[in-house]
Amino acid sequence: MRILGIDPGFGKLGWAVIDDGFKLAGCGAIVTGPGGDFQERLLAIYREIEAILDRFAPAVLAMERLYFSKNATTAMDVGKCIGVVLLCAAKKGLPCAEYTPLQVKRSLTGCGKSTKRQMQIMTGKLYGMKKPPSPDDAADALAVATCHYLASSSAAAAAIGGMGPR
Amino acid sequence: MRILGIDPGFGKLGWAVIDDGFKLAGCGAIVTGPGGDFQERLLAIYREIEAILDRFAPAVLAMERLYFSKNATTAMDVGKCIGVVLLCAAKKGLPCAEYTPLQVKRSLTGCGKSTKRQMQIMTGKLYGMKKPPSPDDAADALAVATCHYLASSSAAAAAIGGMGPR
Repeated sequence: MRILGIDPGFGKLGWAVIDDGFKLAGCGAIVTGPGGDFQERLLAIYREIEAILDRFAPAVLAMERLYFSKNATTAMDVGKCIGVVLLCAAKKGLPCAEYTPLQVKRSLTGCGKSTKRQMQIMTGKLYGMKKPPSPDDAADALAVATCHYLASSSAAAAAIGGMGPR
Repeated sequence: MRILGIDPGFGKLGWAVIDDGFKLAGCGAIVTGPGGDFQERLLAIYREIEAILDRFAPAVLAMERLYFSKNATTAMDVGKCIGVVLLCAAKKGLPCAEYTPLQVKRSLTGCGKSTKRQMQIMTGKLYGMKKPPSPDDAADALAVATCHYLASSSAAAAAIGGMGPR
């Protein structure tokens, strides 16, 4: 199962594609300059995501669920960007799974209070990389994709009476 | 100048297309059921907006700017929908003008405290309609399109040394 992980954001949107068995197919970040026209930036994100979907043909999208307790304006702007990503997935008939930062941390390290550095070390180990993907947004996208992979493997193992990763 | 007015929303998204001289070319609301899949609803909005742009070929998009002071989750969900609308406009190279509810009210009635009923009466007069467009979302979209028309006419008149609507 090929999974596209997305760390949503406006300035930088991280993405990572993984295959079964902790294989990284590709990752990166879509960067749209802060000075650019807002609509143009949405269009750039749309085109890049479409290109990633065409190139890697993932079976599912895993996205980090963001919370904004205070700043509704920021929430709306990030929402615009997430809307475009979800639309791209819907156009291809791809389901989307969402995970909170806590779920991602627990899934990868067993602890919801892991630091970013600890997350990166664990990701490095799983994928046999000497250093984590750069920029951080790509590493975060890899983490959420891995979280979905572990959750699915666990669910699949449970379904056949086995034990999934804890 | 043909203007597409949009009253953004997830459950109901109002739209109205107007031409110079207070002529209504078309209006309606895109309704996506609350029970439906979120991505499917975004896709439905995308397809309907694309169809409206293809059918009416407006030159500009005028959208009501929403504020959410408290509920960031609602802001993000409406943001997803607005992101899809802005993307559709960007794909056609259409600029987007945003107006606050206060600006729309002031523009149409001269008063920022106008009631919905007063707005509807004024819109009815301008477009020679016996009753305002239904549902309310379509009427709101017509109001924001009209606000942009008045603002543009005013700006154009000022540019040639005349007087625009106040």
